[in-house]
Amino acid sequence: LNLCYQICLSSKPNFIIMLMDDMGWGDLGVFGDPNKETPNLDTMAAQGMLFPDFYSANPLCSPSRAALMSGRLPIRNGFYTTNAHARNAYTPQVIMGGIPDEEILLPEILKKAGYRNKIIGKWHLGQQPQYHPLKHGFDEWFGAPNCHFGPYNNKKTPNIPVYRNAEMIGRYYQDFVIDRKTGESNLTQIYIQEALTFIESQVTDKTPFFLYWAVDATHGPVYASKQFLGKSRRGLYGDAVSELDYGVGKILNKLIQLGVDKNTFVFFSSDNGAATYDKGHGGSNGPFLCGKETTFEGGMREPSIAWWPGRILPGQVSHQLGSLMDLYTTLASLSGQQIPTDRVVDGVDLSKVLFGNYEINRPLFYYRGNELMAVRLGQYKAHFWTWTNSIEEFKRGTDFCPGQIIENVTTHNQVNQTAQPLLFHLGRDPGEKYIIKPGSSEYKENIGPILTAVEDHKKNLIPGEPQLNWCDDAVMNWSPPGCEKLNQCYTAPPSKPTKCVWNH
Amino acid sequence: LNLCYQICLSSKPNFIIMLMDDMGWGDLGVFGDPNKETPNLDTMAAQGMLFPDFYSANPLCSPSRAALMSGRLPIRNGFYTTNAHARNAYTPQVIMGGIPDEEILLPEILKKAGYRNKIIGKWHLGQQPQYHPLKHGFDEWFGAPNCHFGPYNNKKTPNIPVYRNAEMIGRYYQDFVIDRKTGESNLTQIYIQEALTFIESQVTDKTPFFLYWAVDATHGPVYASKQFLGKSRRGLYGDAVSELDYGVGKILNKLIQLGVDKNTFVFFSSDNGAATYDKGHGGSNGPFLCGKETTFEGGMREPSIAWWPGRILPGQVSHQLGSLMDLYTTLASLSGQQIPTDRVVDGVDLSKVLFGNYEINRPLFYYRGNELMAVRLGQYKAHFWTWTNSIEEFKRGTDFCPGQIIENVTTHNQVNQTAQPLLFHLGRDPGEKYIIKPGSSEYKENIGPILTAVEDHKKNLIPGEPQLNWCDDAVMNWSPPGCEKLNQCYTAPPSKPTKCVWNH
Ligand SMILES: [Ca+2]
Ligand SMILES: [Ca+2]
Repeated sequence: LNLCYQICLSSKPNFIIMLMDDMGWGDLGVFGDPNKETPNLDTMAAQGMLFPDFYSANPLCSPSRAALMSGRLPIRNGFYTTNAHARNAYTPQVIMGGIPDEEILLPEILKKAGYRNKIIGKWHLGQQPQYHPLKHGFDEWFGAPNCHFGPYNNKKTPNIPVYRNAEMIGRYYQDFVIDRKTGESNLTQIYIQEALTFIESQVTDKTPFFLYWAVDATHGPVYASKQFLGKSRRGLYGDAVSELDYGVGKILNKLIQLGVDKNTFVFFSSDNGAATYDKGHGGSNGPFLCGKETTFEGGMREPSIAWWPGRILPGQVSHQLGSLMDLYTTLASLSGQQIPTDRVVDGVDLSKVLFGNYEINRPLFYYRGNELMAVRLGQYKAHFWTWTNSIEEFKRGTDFCPGQIIENVTTHNQVNQTAQPLLFHLGRDPGEKYIIKPGSSEYKENIGPILTAVEDHKKNLIPGEPQLNWCDDAVMNWSPPGCEKLNQCYTAPPSKPTKCVWNH
Repeated sequence: LNLCYQICLSSKPNFIIMLMDDMGWGDLGVFGDPNKETPNLDTMAAQGMLFPDFYSANPLCSPSRAALMSGRLPIRNGFYTTNAHARNAYTPQVIMGGIPDEEILLPEILKKAGYRNKIIGKWHLGQQPQYHPLKHGFDEWFGAPNCHFGPYNNKKTPNIPVYRNAEMIGRYYQDFVIDRKTGESNLTQIYIQEALTFIESQVTDKTPFFLYWAVDATHGPVYASKQFLGKSRRGLYGDAVSELDYGVGKILNKLIQLGVDKNTFVFFSSDNGAATYDKGHGGSNGPFLCGKETTFEGGMREPSIAWWPGRILPGQVSHQLGSLMDLYTTLASLSGQQIPTDRVVDGVDLSKVLFGNYEINRPLFYYRGNELMAVRLGQYKAHFWTWTNSIEEFKRGTDFCPGQIIENVTTHNQVNQTAQPLLFHLGRDPGEKYIIKPGSSEYKENIGPILTAVEDHKKNLIPGEPQLNWCDDAVMNWSPPGCEKLNQCYTAPPSKPTKCVWNH
């Protein structure tokens, strides 16, 4: 290993982050999906290191991705709102904000080390051109700035553009079809091919690369290619998972085939928990509570696997409390670069975890919008605020915790528990069902270190300028760069910024 | 494979059934426990065939075990009660009944084929001597007739005896200690050693053997040896699981070491779902609904693995709807014996599944006491009756479905749903959360075959004489065979049979 450490680092390793969209912890065979339909991911885990205690930085797409790219919590990088307390906000196409220039993104760091960076798939850090990937360190982009919602009529709302690099090359539902009735779309196949071609080019060029494979077939509207449709035991969602699993296999095999597997660090994860509110048509969070939008385990614990043949020993399990933000610091470190020292970076360097199976003691912070809702330290998690969604919305049929009701925990009003935080032991109680009695010695012994961690955290916290407060129909994707060539420029309405309304 | 089929069957294969007690589907790493503390079972699965869709015949110990041993549903073999509707019954030490002589048990069949049969651990098919293992085909027994409840004072209630073969050699809490405060007991170590010694003897004797390893450390009161206590991330229950996993590894390695692994079929499973009512101190049923005592998936779906190097290909997953009763028919078949033809046997021969990964289309019946509560066929499950427990008991704090409430499904009164059975698709909805609309085409297409299966089942159903109706303090383990030598004979009260009261 030490020998490899010297040799392997003499040439810069390649990096691939495979980030799924709304895929749940329980969606992989290796994480307990009863249908066991992810043979390639299960093999990836068997050849690498499984992380059952790995988290996103936020239970929603945009803030989670902004944190991954910046190494910093959304509260720092601005991906939150102050319009209302503890509300999740993201980047629909009416959003005015996006990733601030001041944030130093992972591809910007890697570029300094000579990497070529490509993002394939969903960006979601702002759809106005100044926020696009190529303005923030990426050399290539194939994908879209927003979710693949639609179809729209291009009158009241334009269809979302798909970009190749700095210019759009078409729009969803027009040029890149998703059949809303059948769920058929060949987008994942395109994303797989884009990845394979990029890897081949970089290997030919002998340039170290960073590929951010941000595929989104498991985000509603869920889609799969014809060859996968109807094949899963789980319905359309399972078809999408199967196709992504197939793609993972194709990419890993390509690395092996090109002989660069021993010089490529691949990390698989998801941006937030499964959308449990999708009435059984979304993914599974396994034994965990609730899902996307919430700061219960189902909202933020992610199915995570690290793979690097020859560097990471096969068949390992790490219970390291990890965060997607750690990839920022770890990849910087592995590329020989420094992370910024003029600001707090939340991600920690996982090198020792990956190569030595060390365990770093660190707290994890569960934010929802501008509020620190919960903190995990070791096996203990304390909730300072509890909330699922409003009772009004719940009664209208939106349920973030279908079939799950934990008294005083899955609350439908925002409950401030700070005076006596709700404490859980996630080892014996992963489902956050059994509140540890505040009078117990277990409570007394374990709440203290968490309170200290919170105090330290808040002491150093400088909230970023909130980016997700203002919305405007005029900033939608009416006339993105490149629209002229396609005759797809549409007329924006007059600008009329309003405070965004965030329900969750 | 065909060659092996000929050669391997020329000598009779050995059989080991490893039956856990109250271990849940989600307790194994390979089935998604986040703590991933079962390396030996995970390896067993990697070397063999995983069965994510395998069931016990009943959500409670005694009926489940009686069904395993007899190959027949409890409604046929008498392991049920008619004292009240749809009530689970079992064999506490006041029970008068037990396994009827008319039932032809698996060891009785194997004995005809020249096998030596041993049970290690919990019998639970009746504690009166006429019901003991050695009266029903076993050659050896080390273990107890009832659960390891206690300690008792030997005045109002005697402590449960531990037998070696036909005579007791001590009692729980007196001679075989379980520390109720710390959970310490070396019983699992004893059970492991018993297994290893038996295997060695049979290999030396060149006698084919059947070992029924019915360990019970995961049944309350949960226990573990000193070397495992406090080691698990999951608390005492996890300690018990870790020790059993260690035992599985020891046994499989012993087979390999003795060179009989390629001639030994090993099957690992559990007798019923995890005891979710144990307020977080029991096991996990993963993504499934409720647990022990119920006919929801959490009550009867079992963590199941088949292992036979050289015969069963490694790394396979079978979605065969399987039942513990199938082991009866399969082992009879593999030993070259016929199953009884004068009665209905519910178990099917899984040989083609194990060796050819075929899938047999068959319904599965979920009974609770004397009532057929639900039926699964393919991916669909229909509930004809729903019940968790009574609202009175629930209010007193016994919750079979902690944190889980599904409207009209987890009912606290017995609801007859027969007029319009509740239909679920377990592939996309393993948690039984989303009732398929009765008006939908999916409902109409899939309820029919289930109704037909029920009709066929009921047509051929001859209920056995119920064995679990009568209780009597006089039949407790006051003076079991062998008590004289130990000076542990206690005086039974006068016989006063009463109808047993079953709450669940
Ligand atoms: Ca997402
Ligand atoms: Ca049991």
